[in-house]
Amino acid sequence: MVKVNENYLKLKAGYLFPEISKRVKVYTQTNPGKDIIKLGIGDVTEPLPQACRDAMNEAISEMGTNEGFKGYGPEQGYLWLREKISENDFMSRGCKISPEEIFVSDGSKCDSSNILDILGKDNSIAVTDPVYPVYVDSNVMTGRTGESLQNGTYQGLTYLPINEENNFLPELPKTKVDVLYLCFPNNPTGATITKGELKKWVDYANQNKSLILFDAAYEAFIKDEDLPHSIYEIEGAKDCAIEFRSFSKNAGFTGVRCAYTVIPKNLSGLNSKSEKVELWSLWNRRQSTKFNGVSYIVQRGAEAVYSSKGKKEVNTLIDFYMENAKIMKNKLQSAGFSVYGGENAPYIWIKVPDGMTSWDFFDYLLEKASVVGTPGSGFGLAGEGYFRLSAFNSRSKVIEAMKRIITI
Amino acid sequence: MVKVNENYLKLKAGYLFPEISKRVKVYTQTNPGKDIIKLGIGDVTEPLPQACRDAMNEAISEMGTNEGFKGYGPEQGYLWLREKISENDFMSRGCKISPEEIFVSDGSKCDSSNILDILGKDNSIAVTDPVYPVYVDSNVMTGRTGESLQNGTYQGLTYLPINEENNFLPELPKTKVDVLYLCFPNNPTGATITKGELKKWVDYANQNKSLILFDAAYEAFIKDEDLPHSIYEIEGAKDCAIEFRSFSKNAGFTGVRCAYTVIPKNLSGLNSKSEKVELWSLWNRRQSTKFNGVSYIVQRGAEAVYSSKGKKEVNTLIDFYMENAKIMKNKLQSAGFSVYGGENAPYIWIKVPDGMTSWDFFDYLLEKASVVGTPGSGFGLAGEGYFRLSAFNSRSKVIEAMKRIITI
Repeated sequence: MVKVNENYLKLKAGYLFPEISKRVKVYTQTNPGKDIIKLGIGDVTEPLPQACRDAMNEAISEMGTNEGFKGYGPEQGYLWLREKISENDFMSRGCKISPEEIFVSDGSKCDSSNILDILGKDNSIAVTDPVYPVYVDSNVMTGRTGESLQNGTYQGLTYLPINEENNFLPELPKTKVDVLYLCFPNNPTGATITKGELKKWVDYANQNKSLILFDAAYEAFIKDEDLPHSIYEIEGAKDCAIEFRSFSKNAGFTGVRCAYTVIPKNLSGLNSKSEKVELWSLWNRRQSTKFNGVSYIVQRGAEAVYSSKGKKEVNTLIDFYMENAKIMKNKLQSAGFSVYGGENAPYIWIKVPDGMTSWDFFDYLLEKASVVGTPGSGFGLAGEGYFRLSAFNSRSKVIEAMKRIITI
Repeated sequence: MVKVNENYLKLKAGYLFPEISKRVKVYTQTNPGKDIIKLGIGDVTEPLPQACRDAMNEAISEMGTNEGFKGYGPEQGYLWLREKISENDFMSRGCKISPEEIFVSDGSKCDSSNILDILGKDNSIAVTDPVYPVYVDSNVMTGRTGESLQNGTYQGLTYLPINEENNFLPELPKTKVDVLYLCFPNNPTGATITKGELKKWVDYANQNKSLILFDAAYEAFIKDEDLPHSIYEIEGAKDCAIEFRSFSKNAGFTGVRCAYTVIPKNLSGLNSKSEKVELWSLWNRRQSTKFNGVSYIVQRGAEAVYSSKGKKEVNTLIDFYMENAKIMKNKLQSAGFSVYGGENAPYIWIKVPDGMTSWDFFDYLLEKASVVGTPGSGFGLAGEGYFRLSAFNSRSKVIEAMKRIITI
């Protein structure tokens, strides 16, 4: 008789975004005429860069000819794309990441959850709180946690709170942890980390032989010259960190699907005999066996992000969303809200008014202003009392949403 | 200290196709002038249908506008594509598979290995021998087997031989097995299964509450009207089977990446209290958490496969490759080879000459005819003594390859 993976049954029923959709649907049904503005999910809204579209159209034409047709590509991604990534995203910042250390994929959500495939079951895991739910859920699903507790946390996971008290920078774990998830610029708080602060984490990881899973999906939004775009800007990071990157938020690829993961060649874990095993080889084997590479057409689109035209267009997109963030931050601050993030990140993290929970504030904003955001508690226990607004929308909708919020 | 997943260390070092590449590379270096014809890997060669290219170009144009831009799509795939699949691939054959039961993905390799995520660790697993290596390796990697034995098999897996003696139809397992992998039309043997024979497997699975993982990636090559294209053509299959399908081999999407998996709503597994748990819900949760859907552009390309123009073009492609298969089969038979498959499948499975192993014959063909095929032993112990040739190549190369082989 076929048995299911029971770890799935530990998952809390309502994933954050479906719950939001449900409440919005109910509101729409009871208020049919209302114009709802969505600043909830972190999804881009502006058109795809022309450079990317041109490159993809050209790739499609090639595929229509006998000479230009491409079948299976390398599971790791085409070398021409990996070379561009290496050169532009790493070498140019002094990070010695070779094309071979880059694995192109169809998304960071896949990569950051699939990475657990190559790690042992008995690693202790730490996540920040609040946190991108995928890190937690993928650990639950693979049996790396115990049951969920009343307060929504899972037994066996170490939660590192990030809040006003610690200026949204997690403290190093008090006990040894094997795997650490870090995301900077942070989703959901919009917080950033300096090189000096990040160095502490790299040192901790190297001292304890821990692995840092560093999610840099929002690095393109960094404007401050001193902030690190990659963990490999920190000395020693190649010995302890895997980095996830994506074309979703810089080039607007959320619907096109392309991302990549960096696994340095000298990065290793241990087997049960305490012998070193190269993580690169394990991931290479995983991707070769369980993945068939990213669409050739999409990879050509991603390559165009690094053309001079593509770079210019991506900058324009980033500036556009960051101007949204600035408008939001200013308006909300002037209305008396405590506002965080929004400076080197596309997320605004606000403190909800006293006496309200995050979900109370969600319902309040929806009903009074027809604006949809994301309750902080949906990202974890320490997110309670906060609320996330995303800067991904058109200028007019952002301005209208702010007008409505501050005049409630 | 971070520990690795040690199950990966059980994997045999040389995956089949890398080993082939290595030998071809050595041959090329020592014989620089030779024109090598590759009939090894099952990768399509003919241009992408115009209907698919047009649809993708149009999707790219849409993505360039504010109104037409698409960000994150549904993780399960767009409904318009799932509706087309349901209608054309299932309803039209009398299989009641609803759009909701279809999950669009970026490849069958991913789906057929990721499916293990939702199944318990303690299921007994059966595969045919020879077999598509991904089924075996994904089980090894997730700790569902013991160590590999000298002969290349893994402890704990049940192997069901398919060979001349049983007319390339596996016998039902003698003991109870929880999960059964079946692939028809078969890769690598090119064998097919009748409805009557497939019914025996469905009955076995329903009697034993087993799960059949049915890989129908090659269904488009079926010309014989009586052969089932889907396992759901068999009564009772919705209670015991998951089906994998792909656009790779019919529409030439190996480089474009689109596939789908069918999980009927009433299909269930058991938890440790022997209570039923719906597999659909588990897979839906898996895909929502660990996957972000297929490129909008690619899904529009897949949708075009079901347009009248697309259908016509796909038929032309199938006919083209099947004519190749026919030529190959005839020529090889007339040269005295025992030849199987190639009638409702794009693979020719030949018996290697007496006294040779599959790898001997690989080297022999490469050296004497500069033709690359795939040694049967690479697909499993019972594949020893056989050799796979793929019908995926241009007409002229197929004719030339046959000429060379029969005149060695």
